[in-house]
Amino acid sequence: MTRKQLIEQIKIKRSYLCIGLDTDISKIPKHLGSHPGAIFEFNKQIIDATKDLCVGYKINTAFYEALGSKGWELMEKTVDYIPHEHFKIADAKRGDIGNTSSQYAKAFFKTLNFDAITVAPYMGEDSVKPFLEFENKWAIVLALTSNPGSTNFEQLKLVGGDTKEYLYEKVLKTVSRWGNIENLMFVTGATKASELENIRKIIPDHFLLVPGVGFQGGSLEEVSKYGMNKDCGLLVNVSRAIIFASEKENFAVEARAVAMQYQAEMRGYLENVKF
Amino acid sequence: MTRKQLIEQIKIKRSYLCIGLDTDISKIPKHLGSHPGAIFEFNKQIIDATKDLCVGYKINTAFYEALGSKGWELMEKTVDYIPHEHFKIADAKRGDIGNTSSQYAKAFFKTLNFDAITVAPYMGEDSVKPFLEFENKWAIVLALTSNPGSTNFEQLKLVGGDTKEYLYEKVLKTVSRWGNIENLMFVTGATKASELENIRKIIPDHFLLVPGVGFQGGSLEEVSKYGMNKDCGLLVNVSRAIIFASEKENFAVEARAVAMQYQAEMRGYLENVKF
Repeated sequence: MTRKQLIEQIKIKRSYLCIGLDTDISKIPKHLGSHPGAIFEFNKQIIDATKDLCVGYKINTAFYEALGSKGWELMEKTVDYIPHEHFKIADAKRGDIGNTSSQYAKAFFKTLNFDAITVAPYMGEDSVKPFLEFENKWAIVLALTSNPGSTNFEQLKLVGGDTKEYLYEKVLKTVSRWGNIENLMFVTGATKASELENIRKIIPDHFLLVPGVGFQGGSLEEVSKYGMNKDCGLLVNVSRAIIFASEKENFAVEARAVAMQYQAEMRGYLENVKF
Repeated sequence: MTRKQLIEQIKIKRSYLCIGLDTDISKIPKHLGSHPGAIFEFNKQIIDATKDLCVGYKINTAFYEALGSKGWELMEKTVDYIPHEHFKIADAKRGDIGNTSSQYAKAFFKTLNFDAITVAPYMGEDSVKPFLEFENKWAIVLALTSNPGSTNFEQLKLVGGDTKEYLYEKVLKTVSRWGNIENLMFVTGATKASELENIRKIIPDHFLLVPGVGFQGGSLEEVSKYGMNKDCGLLVNVSRAIIFASEKENFAVEARAVAMQYQAEMRGYLENVKF
């Protein structure tokens, strides 16, 4: 998917919501059963109930890998089921030496038909660049994440130049030179919304994938206030708060109700964007 | 596998060789065919031909994921085929927020029967700790990697304390406090052998997984000289230089010959270890 197509979807749907399919077999409604196949049935119902409210779906690979090759098969089925106008993210946090990253890119962009994959920056340039070599595909590189551990390394201060900068700022500055706004996004957690103003000074134009709203406590209002740019420039992901809204038989209806609240709020914030 | 069992294997085999099964379908001998199943046949022959010379096998997940769920199935078959006395490493470079890392740990330690998984440290404590909670299982955390991109972030200098330190040194110091020498190892690339002396000052007792010998040009002699400790403390991985030693029908014989050269050299260096 191109940047233009993504912005068009945001404009049409008045939404920058991405729904995270972190489908944990132990948390899905009991009536669906506990066999691995129930995961696809769950995803299918969630997608059917929410697809007009969101512009993307994010599949967290860990929950599928936990079930082995059967889980990987269910991931394949789920990606295929997501409508083609949705931005499909493999939340896989991959990254390795060049020839290995090329294989990961092949896995998620060719074998599976994802539009984007999340990438860990620690190993540097040759670990990220292979993900930038596919037309209309995206690398979404971790910068400042939403979890408590982000203080351990991401927020350490570096020696250098005139001003001291945090590691995550260096990641933003360095990695943004390896790609462009058509093939590169960054992960910036909603629990650090106060940092978004600063992040926007470094990368005013890139899209940001923002996890941490919902279960992790991030504020959609703050994220939108500090993170939005002239093209919207945000994909806000909500996983558990939507997909596990209810354990009852009507879970998909309940999930839709929560997604609708997010979308309604987003519709308001999008009034400020002159597409 | 426990640390004691691993050291026992090194002692018995006079080897600290780990063989990397980076099995690229486009590089295996033509006579095996190009259907995915050929990957298992290739791995089987490599394992049969080398198992008395190495103490571990490292499976690079990217090469299997590139083939989709079928590839994941072949990875399962390969792990099951590796003899139980070998240390089995999933070279997967995983790491995510706590509840997601727990799923990855389940995927590689429970669903698949690996002894260890490589972990990316960028996201900090809650992304690493879930891998340390399984008895006799190991997290092998990236510190200083063997690739050119290691200069981008791993070797940046941090502000702090009395002395300026590199990010990878901070990773060693911080992460080593989260686990112990029975459940935690570090990746330190052979192409940076000169740094090993310094690394050993920070973590004298941990095992190091050392990639980069062979195709990437690292020196086994230097790695052994600077990296070895009183328990050996090294697992040196060689992938392409062994498994793709030949494209002919006798590829496994050729692979064995190369593995034998490494083992012979290691036997010499192990003379210095008083087990």
